Amino acid sequence: MTKRIGILTGGGDAPGLNAVIRSVVLTAYNAFGWEVVGIRQGFDGLLAGTPVMTLSPHNAYDLLARGGTVLGAVNRGNPFMRPVVQPDGTQIMVDAAQDVITRMHELNLDAMIAAGGAGTMAAALRLVELGARIVGVPKTIDNDLSATDVTFGFDTAVVTATEALDKLQTTAESHHRVMVLEVMGRDAGWIALTTGVAGGADAILVPEIPFDINIVCDKILALQEAGRRYSLVVVAEGAHPIDGEQEYIFHGDPMSQARLGGIGYLVGNAIADCLEAEVRVTRLGHVQRGGQPTPRDRWLATRFGSAAVHFVAQERWGHMVALRGTKLIAAPMQDAAKINRVNPDGEMVRMARHLGIVFG
Amino acid sequence: MTKRIGILTGGGDAPGLNAVIRSVVLTAYNAFGWEVVGIRQGFDGLLAGTPVMTLSPHNAYDLLARGGTVLGAVNRGNPFMRPVVQPDGTQIMVDAAQDVITRMHELNLDAMIAAGGAGTMAAALRLVELGARIVGVPKTIDNDLSATDVTFGFDTAVVTATEALDKLQTTAESHHRVMVLEVMGRDAGWIALTTGVAGGADAILVPEIPFDINIVCDKILALQEAGRRYSLVVVAEGAHPIDGEQEYIFHGDPMSQARLGGIGYLVGNAIADCLEAEVRVTRLGHVQRGGQPTPRDRWLATRFGSAAVHFVAQERWGHMVALRGTKLIAAPMQDAAKINRVNPDGEMVRMARHLGIVFG
Amino acid sequence: MTKRIGILTGGGDAPGLNAVIRSVVLTAYNAFGWEVVGIRQGFDGLLAGTPVMTLSPHNAYDLLARGGTVLGAVNRGNPFMRPVVQPDGTQIMVDAAQDVITRMHELNLDAMIAAGGAGTMAAALRLVELGARIVGVPKTIDNDLSATDVTFGFDTAVVTATEALDKLQTTAESHHRVMVLEVMGRDAGWIALTTGVAGGADAILVPEIPFDINIVCDKILALQEAGRRYSLVVVAEGAHPIDGEQEYIFHGDPMSQARLGGIGYLVGNAIADCLEAEVRVTRLGHVQRGGQPTPRDRWLATRFGSAAVHFVAQERWGHMVALRGTKLIAAPMQDAAKINRVNPDGEMVRMARHLGIVFG
Amino acid sequence: MTKRIGILTGGGDAPGLNAVIRSVVLTAYNAFGWEVVGIRQGFDGLLAGTPVMTLSPHNAYDLLARGGTVLGAVNRGNPFMRPVVQPDGTQIMVDAAQDVITRMHELNLDAMIAAGGAGTMAAALRLVELGARIVGVPKTIDNDLSATDVTFGFDTAVVTATEALDKLQTTAESHHRVMVLEVMGRDAGWIALTTGVAGGADAILVPEIPFDINIVCDKILALQEAGRRYSLVVVAEGAHPIDGEQEYIFHGDPMSQARLGGIGYLVGNAIADCLEAEVRVTRLGHVQRGGQPTPRDRWLATRFGSAAVHFVAQERWGHMVALRGTKLIAAPMQDAAKINRVNPDGEMVRMARHLGIVFG
Repeated sequence: MTKRIGILTGGGDAPGLNAVIRSVVLTAYNAFGWEVVGIRQGFDGLLAGTPVMTLSPHNAYDLLARGGTVLGAVNRGNPFMRPVVQPDGTQIMVDAAQDVITRMHELNLDAMIAAGGAGTMAAALRLVELGARIVGVPKTIDNDLSATDVTFGFDTAVVTATEALDKLQTTAESHHRVMVLEVMGRDAGWIALTTGVAGGADAILVPEIPFDINIVCDKILALQEAGRRYSLVVVAEGAHPIDGEQEYIFHGDPMSQARLGGIGYLVGNAIADCLEAEVRVTRLGHVQRGGQPTPRDRWLATRFGSAAVHFVAQERWGHMVALRGTKLIAAPMQDAAKINRVNPDGEMVRMARHLGIVFG
Repeated sequence: MTKRIGILTGGGDAPGLNAVIRSVVLTAYNAFGWEVVGIRQGFDGLLAGTPVMTLSPHNAYDLLARGGTVLGAVNRGNPFMRPVVQPDGTQIMVDAAQDVITRMHELNLDAMIAAGGAGTMAAALRLVELGARIVGVPKTIDNDLSATDVTFGFDTAVVTATEALDKLQTTAESHHRVMVLEVMGRDAGWIALTTGVAGGADAILVPEIPFDINIVCDKILALQEAGRRYSLVVVAEGAHPIDGEQEYIFHGDPMSQARLGGIGYLVGNAIADCLEAEVRVTRLGHVQRGGQPTPRDRWLATRFGSAAVHFVAQERWGHMVALRGTKLIAAPMQDAAKINRVNPDGEMVRMARHLGIVFG
Repeated sequence: MTKRIGILTGGGDAPGLNAVIRSVVLTAYNAFGWEVVGIRQGFDGLLAGTPVMTLSPHNAYDLLARGGTVLGAVNRGNPFMRPVVQPDGTQIMVDAAQDVITRMHELNLDAMIAAGGAGTMAAALRLVELGARIVGVPKTIDNDLSATDVTFGFDTAVVTATEALDKLQTTAESHHRVMVLEVMGRDAGWIALTTGVAGGADAILVPEIPFDINIVCDKILALQEAGRRYSLVVVAEGAHPIDGEQEYIFHGDPMSQARLGGIGYLVGNAIADCLEAEVRVTRLGHVQRGGQPTPRDRWLATRFGSAAVHFVAQERWGHMVALRGTKLIAAPMQDAAKINRVNPDGEMVRMARHLGIVFG
Repeated sequence: MTKRIGILTGGGDAPGLNAVIRSVVLTAYNAFGWEVVGIRQGFDGLLAGTPVMTLSPHNAYDLLARGGTVLGAVNRGNPFMRPVVQPDGTQIMVDAAQDVITRMHELNLDAMIAAGGAGTMAAALRLVELGARIVGVPKTIDNDLSATDVTFGFDTAVVTATEALDKLQTTAESHHRVMVLEVMGRDAGWIALTTGVAGGADAILVPEIPFDINIVCDKILALQEAGRRYSLVVVAEGAHPIDGEQEYIFHGDPMSQARLGGIGYLVGNAIADCLEAEVRVTRLGHVQRGGQPTPRDRWLATRFGSAAVHFVAQERWGHMVALRGTKLIAAPMQDAAKINRVNPDGEMVRMARHLGIVFG
C-alpha cells in the first residue's frame, strides 16, 4: 500500500537535520515506494496551515551537507498551546493537540517522523497518545541523552570548538596569555569536556561541577612555575561558581551582567584579578550550531533517518531512534527527557583529571 | 612502588598515535606517579638498541594534535626475525623474541604499552607468552576490528576523503562529469563505505563486493536520464571486478597496470569506455593517513592511552583496549586478528542501497 | 535607461564563478537598476537556444560560497564551429558567430559579461568585432595571465593542494617516506610552485623547467645524510623530464602510461628506483577545481563581478577585468592569450632555491 | 665575509611570524652562508640578556605552518624605557636604547631583522639612527599599512572570521535569526569589511564609519519584508555609534560595559530592542590571531623573510619589506606609522554598498 509520510524538525538547530530529511526521503522512496512531504516550521507550521514542501529523491539529494534545516524549526515551549480570543475580547491559551491530528488527516499523512529535542518528543508523544502515528529522531547538540550513545550535531559542535581552542593555543603560547573559551552547554557540559580534552585545556568548567575560581588560578600558577607560561580554560555557558564565590564572580548581579557578556567574560575577569596574566576571552555562540555537518554527523544523521523510516514500517509509534554501540534501536520517546549529565565522579572526569585538567 | 613503563608504536600510520603517547605519559605520571620512556622505531628499534626517548608531562603536552608518531614506526612482517650471518658466510633468519625480553630488562621496564595493528599485537602476544608484561592499544585506520566499535585514525581518514568528495561534487555538477575517488582500504571497505554515504556517492566499490562495471555504468546512465548529469564513484584501493570482467578492467595484466595507476584509474577508464561521459580520477593515497587527528580521534586516542595505563595497573597483560558502546573494555590481543569486513548483506550496505547507492 | 545584461561562464571550473555571477546580479540591480539573465552552458547553450536563467538579488544571494557555476560551462575549442548537414548528406563545420549575435538580440540583451579563460575571451572578442557589446572576466585556476596579478580560484586550488601536502608531511616524517604530490598545471607551474613553497617541499617539478630525476634523488639523499629521513616532492601535471631521461621516465611510451597514472606516478617510480626509500604518490586531480572558494577568492571574484558591471556602464567592450596591485583595471581581451609562465631564472624560483628547494 | 644576523619578533601575534623566521634562516644560510640567531621576547629579551636561540636550517624547517612565534613577543609601549631605582629609593624610567646597541655588539650581530608592528618599527628606526644595522618586516593582522598592498596574518584572520560567518549563516537561515559577529579591528575595519563581503553580510560596522543603529534595523526589516527572514551583521571591535546614539548603545557607561562584553553585544542588544527578532552574538577574539597560517600567508611571510635577508645584503638599514603588486620593495620604516584606513567614500565601501550592504 502506498504510504505518505510527513517529516518535521523542531527545537534548536543541530548540524545533520537536513541529512536526516534527505535520508528519510531517499529511504522511503527506494526501500518502500513511499512519498514524503515536509512540514515547515514544526508543529507551529502544521497548526498554521503553512503549505507543505514536496520532497523527492531529486530535490532532497543536495541536502546531505547543508547546515540548518530546510523545513525550518521553532524553538519554544509547548507547541500546542494557542492563543484564542474570547467573546469578551480577552485572550486565553487553549490546547490544540487535537487540531494537529486533524491537520495530519487533512494532509493525508499515514505517519509522521518528528526530529527534535525533548520538547518535540514530548509533543509527539502527546499526539501518539491521541492516536497519531509518529516515530521520533532525537536531536540535541549537547549529546546529553541517556537513551543514545551519541546524537548528530555534537561532533560538528566539538570540531568547531576544538578548532577555536587549537588557534587560541598557538597565540597563547607565543604571547604568554590565559585564553578563555566559552562554549555551548547550558545544563550539560559534554561539549566543554570533550573540547577541553581534545584541545588540551588546563581547566574545564561545566554546569555539573560548580567551580572555585581559586582552583583555576592555582592551576595556572602551578603551570607558570613549571615553565609553561600560558593556559587554556574552557567554560560551558551554564557553568557557575560555588556558593561562596557567587558575589565575587557575578558582582552581586548575576543576571544582567551574565546576560550581557556571558560567563566566559566573568571567568576571564576573575582570572585576570587573581593572577598577573593577560587574559583574552572568546565566546563562540551559535557558530557551534551552524555550518556543514562533519562526515561523522552526516553518516549518523543518515542512519537515524533511515532507521526512522524502518520504524514507521514496523509501526513503532511513540519510539525514537537511538544508537547503542554500533546498533540502532528503538527507544521510548519518554527517554528523550532522561538527561545524561557529566558525572563529577565518573570515568570521563576522572580521566581528564589524570591528564592534569582541573574542574574548578 | 615506582614503575617505569615503555611505549612503542608499530605498523602503518594513523592519526592519533601521538595523542595515545601523550595520554599514556600524562596518565601514568598524574594518576600513578610512573615514568614513561618512548621506544623508537618499534620492535626494530628495541632490538637495535636505539636510544629511548624520555617522555615527560612537559614534553608530551604538545603531542595531542600532531599527526604521525614521534616514536617512529616500522611497517613490515614479523619484527623478531633477524638476519644472522653464519660462520660459513651465509645469512639465516633467527627469531630474536627472547632478545626483546632481555632488552626490556636492560631498560628497566616494568611493563610496556604497544600501540599498533594486528602484526604488532601478534608480536606483543608472543612476548607476553614469554613472560613480558605488555598491554596493547589497537591501531587500524581501516576500522576493521571486530573487537572494538571504532579505532582512532578512522574518523580523520573519512573526513579527509569526504572533503575531497565534497569538492569533486561541485565541479562534477557544473561540468557534467563522472568523478572517481580512490580511497584507502585494501581488505576492508569501511573508509569507502562511510565516505560514500557521508559524501553522497552514487556507487561505492569495496573489496568485499566484487563489482560489475556494467552495473555502475547503468546507474550513471539512469541518473543522467533522470536529469542528474553527474555522478560520484568511490573506489576502495582493494576493490576488484567480478571474474568475468577481470580481463576487461585489467587489460590482461592486473599487477603491473594496477600498481602504476591504481584501481581508481582502471575503473575510471572503464566508465569512460561504457558511457559518453567525461571521467576524472583522484587518488588520495597517504593524505588519508596524515595530518592532525580530528577532535574525535584525539578524544578516542586519549581515552585509549588512559585506559592502557589503567590496564597496566591491573596487570592485564596480553590484553588490548577496546570500545564497546561508551565503555572501554580489555579484549584479548588475539582479537586483533579478527577482522570485521563490510558484510555485503548487512545493515550498512542495505542502508546504502536504500539511499540509491549501487555497489557494482 | 533600463538595461538587461546576460552573463555566461565558459571553460574549465574555477572556484569563484558563482561569486562573480552573484556580484554581477547584485551590483547591476543595486547600482544601476539593471536586470541580469543567466546564459546556461556558455556559447553552446546560447546557440542551442537553451532557456535562460532568471537571476535576481533574491535567488543569487546564496551563490557566494558555492563551488562550480550554476550556469554550467563547456570546456572545448572554438564554440562557434557547428556541424551542419549538407544536402548530399555529408556534414561540414560552419562558423555560427553571427547566430550568437542574433540570439543576443532575440534575448533583448543590451550587453553581456563573459567569464572564462583564453578560449572564452577569444570567442567574446570575435563577437565584439562583429558588433556585440561584451566585457570579460578572466578565469584561470593556474593564475598564469600576464594581464592580472591574480585570478580567482587559484587561492582555493593552492589551499587544497597545500592541505594535502601538510598531511603528507606528518606521515612522511613518522614513517620515513618520500611523498610525491601531483597537482594541476599543464602549461604553467604556479600551483606547484606556490604549494611547494607554502607546504615546505624539497623538490618542485614544473612544466617550465624540464627535470633531471637524478637531481631530485641527490637532494633526497643529501637530506637523509643530514638526518632528515623523509622528503616531499610536488609535481605539476605538465612536468616532464629532460631529453636524456625521457626513455627512463616514460619507459618508451610516454602517452599511454602517463595518461593512465599521471606524471606523479612516473616520478614516484623513478625515485623508488634510484633510492632505497619507500615512495607514496597522491594525485589530487579535480579536487583542486572544486569546493567552496576561499574567502579571498570570494572577495576577488566579487570585486571582478562588480567591476565588470561598471565596465558595461562605461561601455568598455572588448575589455576584461584585471587586478594590478590593489586596483582593478580594464585590460584588452587579447591579453587573455598572454600567458605568464614560471620564469626559471626569475625571482620566485630563485627565492625557492634559496630555501633549499630543487627544481630537478 | 661570514655574517651573523639576529631576528626578533615584536607586538601582537600574527600568523606567519614563524614562517618569516624560517625563511630568514634558510635564505641566510643557503644564499649567503650566514648564521642566524633568534632573540627571544623582542627588545625586552635583548635588554634582559635572555639567552638567544640558535636557529639552523634543520631546526627552523618545521616552523613554516606553526602559528605564533617561537621567539615570543611582547606587546606594549616604548620597549626602551626601563625602570631604574634611584639612590633615594625612588624609581625613574630611563631610555635604554644605547644598551640595546651594546647588547647587539656583545652578541656579535652584524645586522638584525625586526618583524613587528608600528611600535617595533619605531623602536628599530631609533636604533638605526644610533648606528644599528636593522631591516624590518612589517606585521599587522589588520592589513592597514599604506606602504604595502597586504601583510601576512590578514588572510588567516579573514578565513577564520569568514568560516564563522558561514556557520552562522546556515543556522540563522533555519531559525530566522539575526546573527552578530564581532571581529578584530580597533582602528581599521579591513577584517570586518573583507569578512562581511566574503561571507555575505547585510551590515558591516567599522571604526571608520560611526553607525546609526536605526539604519541597521531598517535594513534587517526591509530584508524581512522581502522574504529573507534572517540577517548577518559583522561588527569590528572598534566600531562605535554616531554621537546621537552613544547614550542608547552604551547605556551611559561606554567603558565598563563595553569592556565586559564587547561592542558586538551592545549592537546585538540594540538590534533586539528595535526589532522583533532573535539576536545571537559571537565574539571571536584572539581565535583570529592564532592557528596555522593559510598557505597564502605562509607564502607571503616566506617572501617577506627572504627579501629581508636580501635587504641586509644590500645594507638597506632603516627600511622594511613591502609588497606592491607582485613585487617586493624596500619602504622606509617610517611608513609603518602611515595607517591605511577604510575610506568611507572609497571603492571598497562603494562596492559593498552596491552589493546591498549597509554600514550603519
